Amino acid sequence: RINGDRLWDSLMEMARIGPGVAGGNNRQTLTDEDGEGRALFQDWCVAAGCSMGLDQMGNMFARREGTDPDALPVYVGSHLDTQPTGGKYDGVLGVLGGLEIIRTLNDLGIKTRHPIVATNWTNEEGTRFAPAMLSSGVFAGMHTQGWAYAREDAEGKTFGDELQRIGWRGEEEVGARKMHAFFELHIEQGPILEAEGKDIGVVTHGQGLSWTQITVTGKDAHTGSTPMPMRKNAGLAMARILEKVDEIALSHAPHAVGAAGHIDVYPNSRNVIPGKVVFTVDLRSPDLAVITDMENRLRVAAEDIVNEMGLSVEFEKVGGFDPVSFDVECVAAVRDAAERLGYSHTDIISGAGHDACWINRVAPTAMVMCPCVDGLSHNEAEEISRDWAAAGTDVLFHAVVETAEI
Amino acid sequence: RINGDRLWDSLMEMARIGPGVAGGNNRQTLTDEDGEGRALFQDWCVAAGCSMGLDQMGNMFARREGTDPDALPVYVGSHLDTQPTGGKYDGVLGVLGGLEIIRTLNDLGIKTRHPIVATNWTNEEGTRFAPAMLSSGVFAGMHTQGWAYAREDAEGKTFGDELQRIGWRGEEEVGARKMHAFFELHIEQGPILEAEGKDIGVVTHGQGLSWTQITVTGKDAHTGSTPMPMRKNAGLAMARILEKVDEIALSHAPHAVGAAGHIDVYPNSRNVIPGKVVFTVDLRSPDLAVITDMENRLRVAAEDIVNEMGLSVEFEKVGGFDPVSFDVECVAAVRDAAERLGYSHTDIISGAGHDACWINRVAPTAMVMCPCVDGLSHNEAEEISRDWAAAGTDVLFHAVVETAEI
Ligand SMILES: NC(=O)NCCC(=O)O
Ligand SMILES: NC(=O)NCCC(=O)O
Repeated sequence: RINGDRLWDSLMEMARIGPGVAGGNNRQTLTDEDGEGRALFQDWCVAAGCSMGLDQMGNMFARREGTDPDALPVYVGSHLDTQPTGGKYDGVLGVLGGLEIIRTLNDLGIKTRHPIVATNWTNEEGTRFAPAMLSSGVFAGMHTQGWAYAREDAEGKTFGDELQRIGWRGEEEVGARKMHAFFELHIEQGPILEAEGKDIGVVTHGQGLSWTQITVTGKDAHTGSTPMPMRKNAGLAMARILEKVDEIALSHAPHAVGAAGHIDVYPNSRNVIPGKVVFTVDLRSPDLAVITDMENRLRVAAEDIVNEMGLSVEFEKVGGFDPVSFDVECVAAVRDAAERLGYSHTDIISGAGHDACWINRVAPTAMVMCPCVDGLSHNEAEEISRDWAAAGTDVLFHAVVETAEI
Repeated sequence: RINGDRLWDSLMEMARIGPGVAGGNNRQTLTDEDGEGRALFQDWCVAAGCSMGLDQMGNMFARREGTDPDALPVYVGSHLDTQPTGGKYDGVLGVLGGLEIIRTLNDLGIKTRHPIVATNWTNEEGTRFAPAMLSSGVFAGMHTQGWAYAREDAEGKTFGDELQRIGWRGEEEVGARKMHAFFELHIEQGPILEAEGKDIGVVTHGQGLSWTQITVTGKDAHTGSTPMPMRKNAGLAMARILEKVDEIALSHAPHAVGAAGHIDVYPNSRNVIPGKVVFTVDLRSPDLAVITDMENRLRVAAEDIVNEMGLSVEFEKVGGFDPVSFDVECVAAVRDAAERLGYSHTDIISGAGHDACWINRVAPTAMVMCPCVDGLSHNEAEEISRDWAAAGTDVLFHAVVETAEI
């Protein structure tokens, strides 16, 4: 068994970096705080006897050697970056869970045949630089590095420049590493495990995602002196499109979800009819056909709405991945570990995207989930119990060690 | 007649300060650029032989002496501040039109019995610090100075601190001045004069306004892993309320308008269901009963929407003024001047709020309007012709000089 107290202490220590305003964290990717978090993780890894690799996307790889020089490593990890008003566990648990495995193996003096590499993937959240899971995506060959470097934040700063600025751009070619397997522990970020009273979610599939950035262009004009029939109110068009997003997602419920989290109104002045609104619609389903249907209906609905109002609309797909089926053997290793350790468990589909969803394309991959209170995540009030964290990490430990072979 | 070329040149010179991104201006109140604009206006006024008064709200008063030491001054002016993406004429024409009157009187060597005071009122636009017409409102006793000083911009900076910072806080008590009359020239900001082919709008009334800032609170949560029925999506509630705003305003058309120009979504991340949305609804009508009806229906509709969705809502009235009837004699002076000068004219109701709407409460007041292209304002593409500007200023000149007596 892993050391649950040590794990918890590390989680709490990491959470001191980039504190939020309401008990959670704001440690967004490639900020100074992200740099601090990385340094702390590196210190811990080096103290645990690992060597640290760093690739050109800033992905971090803390390696504990195996006994067989020809055996590919088993990777285990997640991400240290957070939402602007994020929790202390989303991503962090998976990275520090990986470290805890190495610490536990050190405690027990166990050598594995395959090396074990605890990993931190850069910019999983995708808030500052869309899309989410950017660097695991480059690693898996889904995006080019040049494209990733050119991603801009709201202030026009690029991913490439910011990575350089915080000093965490490595030399290593991205995706050059070959993996024996990849495991990711993550909080569920949804309500199912808690509701069913299960300690462990054995993640068999991941929901697919589509992010469409919609720009509605009307005409900014005076809110007081412009007669109603002369208005080209981009804000009102956006409101009508948001209602459609809800309707479209609900038409596929419970096999789909949809919402817009990001909305920017221009010029955003109380007495100016919005001339432009930019917003991102997030549509998800475990079924690719459903995603495609929702995307198409969204475009048609938005075009109908703006045409009727005499406005114009543009669509840009700023993120997306297909539904994922995780590797049957790796999934079985997770299920067997939960069973062996006596934890209650259930098979589950991940509602969120994870680095594991991309890595699954280049290596046998599986995920372990643990419950979170009220299913709440992407909220500073995100909470898990010490026991849940320990149980998830125990299962991760056994699945990884099983796969890495003693 | 006034000197239309000189007026135009001054408009263009002022427009160089705080240029926008699309040919207009971003010279928002109490920015460095506002300070620069004020300094230029002051230089011009001093060169025209005026003394400059400055009150504790930063209102500027350039005085040309009259012949009768006991006669109260005739005030004439508007505002130099602009929207973030504003035009070159909104407000500026009225201030520089006042200056042009003084310059023309100097050219002609005419002395008036009453002094004439060209005025720049601080923070008319209300974008950076709500409400609009803040300082003419304090002058007219509608707000206390302490309340005005405490108004905050989006970054939490206060009006009082920023006024001090740019160096335009005067010593003079606000509202201590007594006026014989006040005249304001302004572009229409709507389409009526151009459509009817009139040079001059004789403003008999001003529409009333109500700004309600609405805060909808839901719960930020993960857009992917939170099931649809568990969501408390404040963005969707906002969308539904915006649809109601349109419906409510249209139910009173053409005697009312309504829209939301300002919308802030929190935390504004693509994969976070908005937990909070703050937005401001602008409702207007020339009929107070209509405004009251719209305000009430808005609250009821918003409460119904959030209750049904299990969210909560708060309302704050952040701006408002009742419909205005301008002074019959001052209005007649404007109408007579247009008639005498042979300009086509029509009586008109102002759709926008103006400093004149507040000053009307403490002094006999009237407004002159000139057309603007396509009725477009609060847009960098706002445009007027040189002839329209000159005609409006001619009428202003004659109305003011008539009232100030030669
Ligand atoms: N786990 C997680 O929140 N990932 C961010 C990508 C997503 O929105 O699903
Ligand atoms: N004239 C003008 O745009 N004033 C700002 C106040 C308003 O929104 O009407």
